[in-house]
This record gives sequence, C-alpha cells and structure tokens, in this order.
Amino acid sequence: MVAEAATINAQRLLQRIEQLGRIGRLPEVQGGGINRPTYGPAWMEARSRVAGWMSEAGLAVRVDAAGNLIGRLGSGGGSAAAIALGSHIDTVPHAGPLDGAYGVLAAIEVADALRRAGAQLRHPLEVLVFADEEGRIGGGLFGSRAMAGLVEPDFAERLTDVGDAMREAGLDPRRLGEAARKPGELACYVELHIEQGGRLDRMGIPVAVVRGLVGIRRFRVAFRGQANHAGTTEMRGRRDAALAAARFLLDFRERILEKGEGVVGTVGVLDLEPGAVNVIPGVARLEGEFRALEAAELAELEAETARIAGVAAERERCTAEFELGAWDPPTLCDPKVMTALEAAARPRLRAGQEVPRLDSRAGHDAQSMAHLCPVGMLFVPSLGGYSHVPQEATRAEDLVLGAEVLLAATLRLDQTL
Amino acid sequence: MVAEAATINAQRLLQRIEQLGRIGRLPEVQGGGINRPTYGPAWMEARSRVAGWMSEAGLAVRVDAAGNLIGRLGSGGGSAAAIALGSHIDTVPHAGPLDGAYGVLAAIEVADALRRAGAQLRHPLEVLVFADEEGRIGGGLFGSRAMAGLVEPDFAERLTDVGDAMREAGLDPRRLGEAARKPGELACYVELHIEQGGRLDRMGIPVAVVRGLVGIRRFRVAFRGQANHAGTTEMRGRRDAALAAARFLLDFRERILEKGEGVVGTVGVLDLEPGAVNVIPGVARLEGEFRALEAAELAELEAETARIAGVAAERERCTAEFELGAWDPPTLCDPKVMTALEAAARPRLRAGQEVPRLDSRAGHDAQSMAHLCPVGMLFVPSLGGYSHVPQEATRAEDLVLGAEVLLAATLRLDQTL
Repeated sequence: MVAEAATINAQRLLQRIEQLGRIGRLPEVQGGGINRPTYGPAWMEARSRVAGWMSEAGLAVRVDAAGNLIGRLGSGGGSAAAIALGSHIDTVPHAGPLDGAYGVLAAIEVADALRRAGAQLRHPLEVLVFADEEGRIGGGLFGSRAMAGLVEPDFAERLTDVGDAMREAGLDPRRLGEAARKPGELACYVELHIEQGGRLDRMGIPVAVVRGLVGIRRFRVAFRGQANHAGTTEMRGRRDAALAAARFLLDFRERILEKGEGVVGTVGVLDLEPGAVNVIPGVARLEGEFRALEAAELAELEAETARIAGVAAERERCTAEFELGAWDPPTLCDPKVMTALEAAARPRLRAGQEVPRLDSRAGHDAQSMAHLCPVGMLFVPSLGGYSHVPQEATRAEDLVLGAEVLLAATLRLDQTL
Repeated sequence: MVAEAATINAQRLLQRIEQLGRIGRLPEVQGGGINRPTYGPAWMEARSRVAGWMSEAGLAVRVDAAGNLIGRLGSGGGSAAAIALGSHIDTVPHAGPLDGAYGVLAAIEVADALRRAGAQLRHPLEVLVFADEEGRIGGGLFGSRAMAGLVEPDFAERLTDVGDAMREAGLDPRRLGEAARKPGELACYVELHIEQGGRLDRMGIPVAVVRGLVGIRRFRVAFRGQANHAGTTEMRGRRDAALAAARFLLDFRERILEKGEGVVGTVGVLDLEPGAVNVIPGVARLEGEFRALEAAELAELEAETARIAGVAAERERCTAEFELGAWDPPTLCDPKVMTALEAAARPRLRAGQEVPRLDSRAGHDAQSMAHLCPVGMLFVPSLGGYSHVPQEATRAEDLVLGAEVLLAATLRLDQTL
C-alpha cells in the first residue's frame, strides 16, 4: 500500500547535515573543512551519531564485518529482497559537508517518513552507510566492495595498515569476508548524491537521474629524445622530450574536447629527466586518464591516445612508449530503476523542464553495488561545481527536493520491483 | 723574429690526447668515459703528467694558489706581457677526451714547436691549465676566475667543501687570493677548444674564430590555475596549469627559432602540483634559460619570454608569475685577436672556404680571462655535435690543423700586440 502522506522532514534533514558536518571539522589554520577518514575517531563518532538517528527512525541497526552501518525497516510484504538506499560518511581531507553524508541523511529521512506515514511496503527498506568510499584505507569503495563480495576475504589481514585500522574500530580483519551479501538479498540500491560537477548548476535544474558511472582508463607515456647541452646544441637538431610531451598535452585535450560533453581527460603527472635547467630534457614521463560511459568510446580513446602520443613524439624526433594503466569499467544504471527515479523526479521540476540523464564522472558505492543488484543514482546540483573542498554547497531547497524524489522513487520501486 | 720553420708534432699531439684520456677513465659498467673532478686523484695525476710535458717543452712550470698549472717560455723581447694559451683538464662525469685537454695539449705543442725552431718572440709565452672549469668544486671557471681576481679571497675558506678539496690537493685555501694576476701581466689569452655543437661539422669547415661567448639568462615561470577533480570537472570550465605550461614550451621554442641561429632557449625543469593522476594540475612551475651573444637581444628575450608566459596563461585561464634568474653577461672576443686568429686560419682552409665567426654557446675560461686581458678562441668541429659524453670526437686532421692555426696565430699575435 502506498502511503500518500509520507513527507520529508526538511528542517531536520538540513539540521542533521549541519550537525554531522561539525564532526571532524579542521581548524581554519589547518586548511578548514572536514576530515573523517574511515575507522578514525571522527568517523566512529559520526557513524555512532548516524546509528542513533537510524534507531530514532525505527530502523534495526547493525555494523557488518567491514564496518558498514546497516539500518533495516520492516520485513517486507511479498518479497524478502530489500530496497537499499545509502552512501558514505567518510571524507577526503578538507571536505565539504555534503559528499556522501547527504545521501545517508536523506535515506534516513525517507525511512522515517515511511515509518511515520505507516507505509506498508512490499520490500524491506535498508539504509546503508559504507566504510571508506574515499579510499583512504582500503583503496576506494572498500565497504561497498566488501558487501558486494569484491574484496578478497584475507585482504585486510594481508595489508597491515588496513587490518590495524579495522582493529582500532573494533573490527576483526579476519572476518572481513562475512560482509559479503548474497545475490537476491537486495532488490536494488539507490544513491542520492551531489553532482560534484557544475552541469546541473548551469542548467538550473534541481535533480538528475544518473545513466551510469563512467569507466576510467589510466595511461602512461614516456617520451624519449636526447638529453644534451642547452647551450651548444642547435635548436634545429634537438630531440627535446619536454616539447613532445607539451604537444601531447595539447593534442590530447583537443581530442577529448572533440568527443563532446560525455568524456573528460586529464594529464596530472609530468616529470622531466634529467630535470636540470641547462640540459635539454631527454625523457618526459607523464600519467593521465580519461573517463567515458561507453566501453566502446574508452576503447577508441585508448587507441587514439596512443596514436596522439606517437605523432607528438615523431614531430619532435622523439619516441613514445605508451602504456595502459589501471582500468575501472563503466557501470550502467538499471533501466527500471532509472524509470522509477525519473517518474519520481519529473513532477518536482518546473513546467518545461526535463529530467536530465547525466553520467557520473566520479566513483560511487553504486559501482560496487551494481555487482550485487540493480542500481540507480540521483544527483542534486553542486553550486559552482565545487567538490572535495570546504566550499562544496547545494541550495537548501534542492537538498530537500532531492530527498523528496528519493522518497517518491522508493515508493515507486516498491511497487515495480 | 718569426721562426718560419716552427711546426706542430702532429703524432705526439694525438698520442698525448689519447694518453691523457686514459687517466680517470670509468669502466663501461659505470657508464664509461672519463671522470676527472678538480683536486681529485685523477686530476692530480693528469696535471702532473701535463706538467712533465710542459717541462719537456722547455717551459718553466709552477702551480698557483688556486691549483692552476702555469708553464712559461722565455722572458720576451720588447714586452713583459705574456701571450697566454690554455684551457683545462678537469672533466664532467662520463666525459670525452677532448674538452679542455685538447686546448692544453695543443698549447704545449705550440710552445715546443717554437722552442724547437729557436723562435725569438717579443712576448713571453704562457701555457695555462685552469682548475675546475667544469664547476664541480667552485661553481664553474673557478681557476680562471681566481686568476682574473673574480673570486673573493676568502671564498674557499668560507665554503668547507672547496677548502677541503683544495687542502687535499696540497693547497692552502687561505692563500687563494694570491692566484690573482695583475692587469698588464698578460697581453692576451687564446683558447683552442672543440666546438661542442654541430655547426662546424655540418659546414664541413675545420676551424672557426669565436666572436664571443653568449650571455645566459635563466628564468622561472609559475602558472597557476585551479586544481580540481579530474572526473567531475567539465573540460570547458578547467584552468589546467599544465596546459598553460605546454603552450608556453611550444610558443617559447617558436620564438627562439624565429631569432635564428645565434640564439638558443631551453626549458629543462617542469613540475606539476599536486601531481596526482586524478587531479587537474593547479600549479605548473618551470625553469628555463636562453643564450645569445648580444646584450640587447637578451634584454629583448626577457621581455618576450614574460609576454609569452602571460599569453599562454591567459589562453588557459591561468595566471603566470614570471621571474628572472641567474645572469651571465656575454663576453666579446677582442677584435685584434680575432683578426690574428682569422689570418692564421685562412691559409689552412680549402679554396673558397671562409673562416666562420661563431659564438660560443658554452662557458669557457676565456670568459674570466676577458676581465684581465684581450681574449680570443678557436673552435674545431665536434663530430655530430656531441659534447660532455664519451662519444665526443674530432677528426685527427682537424685536431692537428687547430694546433697549427694556434701556432701561426701565436706568431702573428707576437708581432701585432
């Protein structure tokens, strides 16, 4: 039975965002913002606060073997598979108050709204708070990867740092494998998150449905020329590896721009050898990455990036060694889930506005969870596109609207899944 | 009286180059080549060998307070000012056999040829072997700077490394100031050297007169953009400092090329911050230099390089901080000395060949000596332009021809100065 009267407690949601944001706050002299690395004291305090709010919302609360916090509402009517909502409360250093935390607190408000309205759902509802989404302990999406069975059971035992951090949080690293859930336990996983980019803010639209999470391909290029005397070597005879790298940077960016809005590419690392002011660089090593939602596009970019490196090298009479690096495959959101999210969002937009379908260019726990169940994500705007910095912000009305869409979507998913 | 019969002992010159090149040789597993840092055992052995050859040539030999080796022939007829010929025998690591050593050994052959011919010169002749031309101890041109009175007398006392190195070579750092010679003691200083670049080799001409030694201006640029998430930050909104640096590298090179053959410019240092593969570079710091013989051209390049940095920054929506660094002023060779060198060289070229006037793009002891007396330099070709590497080489006939030109020039200078 759909509880028509279920409504988000807007004021409390905003208050709790503010309250949680006080835990782990850094003084301005230390750069400001929030710092809550997973398993650390600030994160433990935040998790305990969130667990309390879960209990108030009527959820049965437990911590799994990875330190994930799980709150569960009801046993469900016709199905044992739960609808899961969630995100994370760990942060990067100098973080803002919304990344992760917003999705968790909105999910608790959804649960509370359903409880208050006496909604009888066909599915149990779970609120999931994942450990170490930011990768400061276990390499990224650690808690959700553990829940999806993607972490080797002895991972935390083998890595002393991870094991020690877990033990300090009262966890037994040897039992990490127990965090894995069985296929069929979850009907879907839906994550509400700030966009972290500036697209929605520029569009002036308060909510978007995520089509999928981009795949990430890293690469390395070593350009090799000839180190030589910066005075006596004629300009025309030179084989300057830094100039080959410079050409590559500009040509690579040009190619990424041609690909259009769905693709980004960055070179973040560049080192010259020998790296002396009076020696022509003989070697330039760079590391970069590109992100796209389509696997075919990523494959195309692999070949094109290698080609661009070769051309840049040739024009400077250097050679290029191109090497593919780490690879995160794209994750596509579930069509049924997307439809429910879109239907829930549409009535909340102004007349004439369409619900945008965006790709997520950052990693999220939904990527891991896609290995376990259908997933979906909602984005609300990030003002100015700021993310992972203290000035990260979203308009209060958009934060509330996002939670309302999550509530409406939960009710729809309960009917359609 | 000009001794018409004076001739270079070609075979001995080549043998001694080979013999001196065996002192300080590094095994191939250590990268090969020669390593003779000033005041070290290999350098001491080489200097002692050279002192012996000087004595055989009839020179009165002494070591000055900086460790420079000075051989003197005759007291001169009408003038007390000596004609000085020379160079250095210290090396960079993995050096070839010619840099410095060739000029010293050719000068000894000139002295020996004059002695054998019974030449009665108007001027005394000196052969100078300067300590630490390569700057591995005292910062470059150390011995010649000391002789020219350009080193502060307490320099070696204040710098423990330099003082210790001198003491190991049997020198008293407190007496360094005694190495300075008085203006008027030397009528001129002429240095025969390999070119270290590839110009003569490409021209197919065995000898050149040096017009002057280029000035060197170093600079630093810090490009500042905005570090941001490599995934969520749209391509079009970015302020990527690495791209500003890349533009600068290419534009700067273009400008240097437009300046023509007399000018070189290099960026040898480039660092990105934060330097992570998944973060857009917020800061790119680079260090470079340009070299030209004309002071006006150097001043023009200072302004143009700053402007190029500003334009590159603006196109990438970054800012550029441009800063001038170390400065070596250009040194012009003396017109009278150049005329004598040219007259000595011309008869040794093939019909139709002109004696090229080249600028020296590397530093030489002649730069210091120009503060004391008129200077001139001769270049012989460097095969392939290789320098400061084991494969540094010059054709045997060009090495002999260079020494013959030095001999003829000495006789002319004795008449004209």
